[in-house]
Amino acid sequence: MFAPLQNDTFLRACMRQATDYTPVWLMRQAGRYLPEYRASRAQAGSFMGLATNTDYATEVTLQPLERYPLDAAILFSDILTVPDAMGLGLSFALGEGPKFAHTVRDEAAVAKLAVPDMAKLRYVFDAVTSIRKALNGRVPLIGFSGSPWTLACYMVEGAGSDDYRLVKTMLYQRPDLMHRILAINADSVAAYLNAQIEAGAQAVMIFDSWGGVLADAAFHEFSLAYTRRVLAQLKRAHEGVVIPRLVFTKGGGLWLEAMGQLDCEVLGLDWTVNLGKARALVGSEGTSGGHAKALQGNLDPNVLFANATQIESEAIKVLDSFGTPHMNRGHTGPTHIFNLGHGISQHTPPESVEVLVRAVHAHSRKMRTETKNV
Amino acid sequence: MFAPLQNDTFLRACMRQATDYTPVWLMRQAGRYLPEYRASRAQAGSFMGLATNTDYATEVTLQPLERYPLDAAILFSDILTVPDAMGLGLSFALGEGPKFAHTVRDEAAVAKLAVPDMAKLRYVFDAVTSIRKALNGRVPLIGFSGSPWTLACYMVEGAGSDDYRLVKTMLYQRPDLMHRILAINADSVAAYLNAQIEAGAQAVMIFDSWGGVLADAAFHEFSLAYTRRVLAQLKRAHEGVVIPRLVFTKGGGLWLEAMGQLDCEVLGLDWTVNLGKARALVGSEGTSGGHAKALQGNLDPNVLFANATQIESEAIKVLDSFGTPHMNRGHTGPTHIFNLGHGISQHTPPESVEVLVRAVHAHSRKMRTETKNV
Repeated sequence: MFAPLQNDTFLRACMRQATDYTPVWLMRQAGRYLPEYRASRAQAGSFMGLATNTDYATEVTLQPLERYPLDAAILFSDILTVPDAMGLGLSFALGEGPKFAHTVRDEAAVAKLAVPDMAKLRYVFDAVTSIRKALNGRVPLIGFSGSPWTLACYMVEGAGSDDYRLVKTMLYQRPDLMHRILAINADSVAAYLNAQIEAGAQAVMIFDSWGGVLADAAFHEFSLAYTRRVLAQLKRAHEGVVIPRLVFTKGGGLWLEAMGQLDCEVLGLDWTVNLGKARALVGSEGTSGGHAKALQGNLDPNVLFANATQIESEAIKVLDSFGTPHMNRGHTGPTHIFNLGHGISQHTPPESVEVLVRAVHAHSRKMRTETKNV
Repeated sequence: MFAPLQNDTFLRACMRQATDYTPVWLMRQAGRYLPEYRASRAQAGSFMGLATNTDYATEVTLQPLERYPLDAAILFSDILTVPDAMGLGLSFALGEGPKFAHTVRDEAAVAKLAVPDMAKLRYVFDAVTSIRKALNGRVPLIGFSGSPWTLACYMVEGAGSDDYRLVKTMLYQRPDLMHRILAINADSVAAYLNAQIEAGAQAVMIFDSWGGVLADAAFHEFSLAYTRRVLAQLKRAHEGVVIPRLVFTKGGGLWLEAMGQLDCEVLGLDWTVNLGKARALVGSEGTSGGHAKALQGNLDPNVLFANATQIESEAIKVLDSFGTPHMNRGHTGPTHIFNLGHGISQHTPPESVEVLVRAVHAHSRKMRTETKNV
């Protein structure tokens, strides 16, 4: 059904297999910093107009790949499509974050929640298939969803928040309601990601964008436990091909050892984490009780506002902080997928991304050559 | 000049000396959640109207002590008074965060910066002396400032920020300018805190509110190094009495071992940190190369929106996560100062604070008795 994959560097790195260079893609790589994206969005009329239209979603997903030699594509969509399908009414005003028309703040609203009919998310699965076809095997396609906790934040708050007062009030005052929301979210996210896999996604990523706002004990109980519940339900493979699973908790560096125990292949890290320390903690066999992880990250997106020499130098620092990945073909070992520590800023000069991607490819090839020659 | 101190529990805990119970105070304890504070602010006309008037500053500093048996008072002021004295024009619109009329974004603006004449901050030192007198020895008075990096964030951005794009652009693109701002800030903060000590502050705290937004390497170079520069210049004692120094980096849990090397007595921690792990890392002699620290924190302020039983239970969890402090009179050892992990929310019901403070005192006395009986 789909063309054979020509560049499997990203998928190999996910599986902790040796690669010739460090693969790179960028969170939110199809986005507002690209003039061609802004033109498509203006035509579509709104963010959801783009996301719900197969042709537009395909077009904008491929835009960054036309410009840069990126090693993966990521479905153009939003982390909040699942609660939208639950009937909460997602919208995006221009220049603002997501908003829900209906919030989930009391027992009655929680009682009404259920795993949505996946038919309501058909537009996402159609987009996945269309993008996969359009990619024609160039690079793999990543599907994604928000984590159960991150979805709950928006469902209770109704929008982004500075202090997460409403969702945390529910968490501390009515933990029973919070657990009910999270269980429904976890089962919904699992069904949603499995349907993306069936539609053609070659890897899936869970964005726990707001896990880092939780207190230590609360993170384990209300975020990590439900990420685990999603992972336990995910397909391991599709049509005989393994589907790597990536988990990214923004601000989750303190909980890396616990996350190392997750049944997934890759952990995403933000820029506060030292990649060398993370590799020592969870990147190698024998660490984390044998559940070694590939690591993804973690350049500060604000580096892309500096000049070309500085961008190159900061990219090299990130690669060097991880160190040379293992080069033992036929075995698994520590691997690194280069990315930003969070989504790319809408204000980024597009030429900065070109500099970054080329620097990552060039320096990571050089690291491997130098290690061989030692 | 000042009345003798009647309750030295907080200062003893700062110095890692045994206490009968765990002292407690709350960041932003004099603030908008108190109706009497809102009345004072309405009279004064603005936040700066309160902060710059000795009588008002004294009145609002003491308001929470009239209600609750807190173990310390903290000067009513703002973390950004120093750049205001540099001529940047600090203001607070009602319901909004701080704003500067002038920003520091280019070489010319940086060239104009200098350590301000401390006479411009006289209103702060007068307030310190007035509050210390009004306290009449009830509890010790804490002075404070923003950290050099946190001041720089506001000086460059001009206000709070979601992404710190402007200040980080300068950091990556013109590190020379950023280092110059930070050096001036550090020397200014040191002079400012020393003057607070001379005016009567019995402990001083550095709020690195935005240290946690930095990338791993950048935190060490642009935040921690300048906190160190402040600490190196601070008075160790005043009139023969030791002045403990507290450092709080919001989001700094990942860098706890490095912060354990700081020449200060107390580290403040936000709610993402496990106090038991922090105690093992930096709380005992032999950890951190012998620079053991008292630990302060770290209840999620949103717990105060739950009901009384839940507030008590969460407070007990925080106390238990630290464990029983050492009880060896005449020696130093691990100690805990109870606080929130960040400032108290303006929406907090005042009666929740009463429940919290009483729970901390009661349970921490009980912990000590039970340990004795074992």
